[in-house]
Amino acid sequence: MEEKTVKELKKIVGRDGVLHTPEDLAVYGYDGTFEDSSPDIVVLPETTEQVSRILQLAGRERIPVVTRGMGSGMAGASVPYRGGIVLTMTRMNRIIELDEENGMVLVESGIITAELQAEVEKKGLYYPPDPSSNRQSTIGGNIACNAGGPRCLKYGVTGDYVLGLTVVLPDGRILKTGGKTIKDVVGYDLKSLFTGSEGTLGVITEARLKLIAKPDVIHTASAEFPSLNDASRTVNAILSAGIVPVTLELIDDTAIACIEEAMSLGLPRDVEAMLIIETDGSDKDSVAREIERIGAICKENGARTVTVAKDEDERNNLWKARRSIAPSLARMSPNKLGEDITVPRNAIPEAVRRLKDISARHGLPIAVFGHAGDGNLHPNVLFDLRNPDERATMEKMIAEIFETALDLGGTLSGEHGIGSLKLPFMERAVDAVSLDVQKSIRNLLDPLGIMNPGKALPE
Amino acid sequence: MEEKTVKELKKIVGRDGVLHTPEDLAVYGYDGTFEDSSPDIVVLPETTEQVSRILQLAGRERIPVVTRGMGSGMAGASVPYRGGIVLTMTRMNRIIELDEENGMVLVESGIITAELQAEVEKKGLYYPPDPSSNRQSTIGGNIACNAGGPRCLKYGVTGDYVLGLTVVLPDGRILKTGGKTIKDVVGYDLKSLFTGSEGTLGVITEARLKLIAKPDVIHTASAEFPSLNDASRTVNAILSAGIVPVTLELIDDTAIACIEEAMSLGLPRDVEAMLIIETDGSDKDSVAREIERIGAICKENGARTVTVAKDEDERNNLWKARRSIAPSLARMSPNKLGEDITVPRNAIPEAVRRLKDISARHGLPIAVFGHAGDGNLHPNVLFDLRNPDERATMEKMIAEIFETALDLGGTLSGEHGIGSLKLPFMERAVDAVSLDVQKSIRNLLDPLGIMNPGKALPE
Repeated sequence: MEEKTVKELKKIVGRDGVLHTPEDLAVYGYDGTFEDSSPDIVVLPETTEQVSRILQLAGRERIPVVTRGMGSGMAGASVPYRGGIVLTMTRMNRIIELDEENGMVLVESGIITAELQAEVEKKGLYYPPDPSSNRQSTIGGNIACNAGGPRCLKYGVTGDYVLGLTVVLPDGRILKTGGKTIKDVVGYDLKSLFTGSEGTLGVITEARLKLIAKPDVIHTASAEFPSLNDASRTVNAILSAGIVPVTLELIDDTAIACIEEAMSLGLPRDVEAMLIIETDGSDKDSVAREIERIGAICKENGARTVTVAKDEDERNNLWKARRSIAPSLARMSPNKLGEDITVPRNAIPEAVRRLKDISARHGLPIAVFGHAGDGNLHPNVLFDLRNPDERATMEKMIAEIFETALDLGGTLSGEHGIGSLKLPFMERAVDAVSLDVQKSIRNLLDPLGIMNPGKALPE
Repeated sequence: MEEKTVKELKKIVGRDGVLHTPEDLAVYGYDGTFEDSSPDIVVLPETTEQVSRILQLAGRERIPVVTRGMGSGMAGASVPYRGGIVLTMTRMNRIIELDEENGMVLVESGIITAELQAEVEKKGLYYPPDPSSNRQSTIGGNIACNAGGPRCLKYGVTGDYVLGLTVVLPDGRILKTGGKTIKDVVGYDLKSLFTGSEGTLGVITEARLKLIAKPDVIHTASAEFPSLNDASRTVNAILSAGIVPVTLELIDDTAIACIEEAMSLGLPRDVEAMLIIETDGSDKDSVAREIERIGAICKENGARTVTVAKDEDERNNLWKARRSIAPSLARMSPNKLGEDITVPRNAIPEAVRRLKDISARHGLPIAVFGHAGDGNLHPNVLFDLRNPDERATMEKMIAEIFETALDLGGTLSGEHGIGSLKLPFMERAVDAVSLDVQKSIRNLLDPLGIMNPGKALPE
């Protein structure tokens, strides 16, 4: 990068807002996958105005800009393959206004999701979306990927809580959309266009989010299934009974084995699957009755045991198990590729069968877990990146996993996004006219192609 | 319209799919407001393919196209001020697939909303969005306006149920977006862009909608408030207690008086306001306890009486009152203009005070009612269009109503849209950069400007 450009960036954000030693650059080159590529420079803005000036400079000099929260993405979206500027939003992490009366919060986009959640919960409010990365990921990253999480079955995904955004467009203009109203049909819904656009249409600097009242009562149950197929069938049996639990998570035996190897939490090693199910509400008796009804449905569908957590400790233990799947898999295998397919919920048993078949045919383990209640599964292929055969096999398996999802009326991603890793499959998943319109909108807003080039949409 | 064009349209949709006698044209020139302007021709397509051919023809000949459901819009969006083609979608009214297992339905866009609701309820399923027009309005019109309704407080608006759309673009290309998955972050969210775009970005021909389980238990209560201000304050008191009723409707004394003049339903004529509140769920005791808690909050905040409907008859009577407000107002006054402002929910008492003050200062009655729970009020100005003074006064009052909404952090429309009637106020309500981006997206998709010209966005 030219000295003149570096100087100008330092003028915009201050000397300490620009990083460019090789060590610094290495730290900002990876994400939650095994992808890695250093940027030319890292810039840490503190205001929307600074972001605007940085993008104007980048446009003038045709420098690629990759916006980054905490780099926990699962599809390569924040990896700067083409160098350029990594725009790290973590210094913009303030809560600007917590409006208790209207149940809304206005934040800068670099705030960590769990920190925001802790703050609003102090006031009896609740921000439901809970990507498993919520202790490191930022709200801005969550919005850019329209992140989900276990609780999204009942409460909806990140985008369902976005009331308004401040976005710096690729040409530096500052756009504001939405506000303090719950319903708003004035003009086109631009906030939904930016939500999930993976940093390709602009930089989200502020977000106004809807909050709900914190539920008073939560019950969490685990059900052990000798048969994975029975566990899969049970998901739709519960939902078809008209019950919408908060979470309905599936964990298969491969995942259980990895958790137990890594942490010895006392999970059953002699079953093919577990379901973790949670219900909540404000009415104690009704929540208790709901978890009982769910337990009965599990038993009718082949659960060996159903255990309702008796206290906060037992509850935390179950969630500890669920949250530690990804790190446990990482300990058990040199590498893993975690996918994020979704299928119609009645296709879950068939999807799980086919995933296990792919694993058997190719000889690499696939751990299957995820938010089965909304048809969103995370098949993780375990492999060794240093072994070229295993990498090639993994790639074949990933292709078959996507084929499976599409065959069953599903799609490539429920909450991780496309990034770079899923690009080769996008043309099969998305209608050609739709893709063409998406590309033309991108080109309209970013004619110079500086925003996260090579991501989210095929070129 | 040229004879050649009429012939070509008849070739596309058949002779009986084209209407052009003066009587026919008059019938397709109005909407739910007092606006009126005849098209040059009415075309009733039966397939997406026919719509595509019609739009290709319209583009070639530069003929404006106004898509129309049942003409119940409240902002002039379906009035063909510039003549051209009215594309009436009512022959495309089939249920293509009711997928009970996945809780989804695929429909053609011309189906009447209440007919769809009745069909899915036969299977124990439920389509919550319930615009007051649901017995005449179509799903396509609901999506084009992102329609709301009383139940949207708990269940969300039309857009929250749209899983996928088939849209014919202005150039005739057929675009498909979304599918049978609940979560989908593959590419940009185009379905939300088309939802609420008021027929300016294309013609919605099919929609896949999410359904939920039909609630087993519903309780409906009415609360009578001697003071309108107390009724307004109660709205936020209920929501701040962490309760989310299905509906939380406000009806003021002007509206009550009109209903009673028209229908004599036995509503109290000696109070300033009523609230109609509904709760639902699957747990009988819990729903009953919730309505009791709400009743107690009403009493604490100044309700004279709270009555819970004892049976379906009493419940229907309350909803009959609510639904008959608009027709009753129409009977009491030669004309009415019904607005649709939204404000943050804690601003409702101040908004209601200011609305009453506008009425007092200008001397024309304003009936205030609406979905107070989500801050969405329908102030209706009663006037006589034949009296030029009253029309001028009404126009001043409408401008002040919008100023009030914007002053209080609200906006112009919660569920009716902009159409033609609210266009003059849009630049004050929407960020200039956002408006510019919206216009450029419209121009990108409709460079010839044939789709509902002069609506939704300022030119």
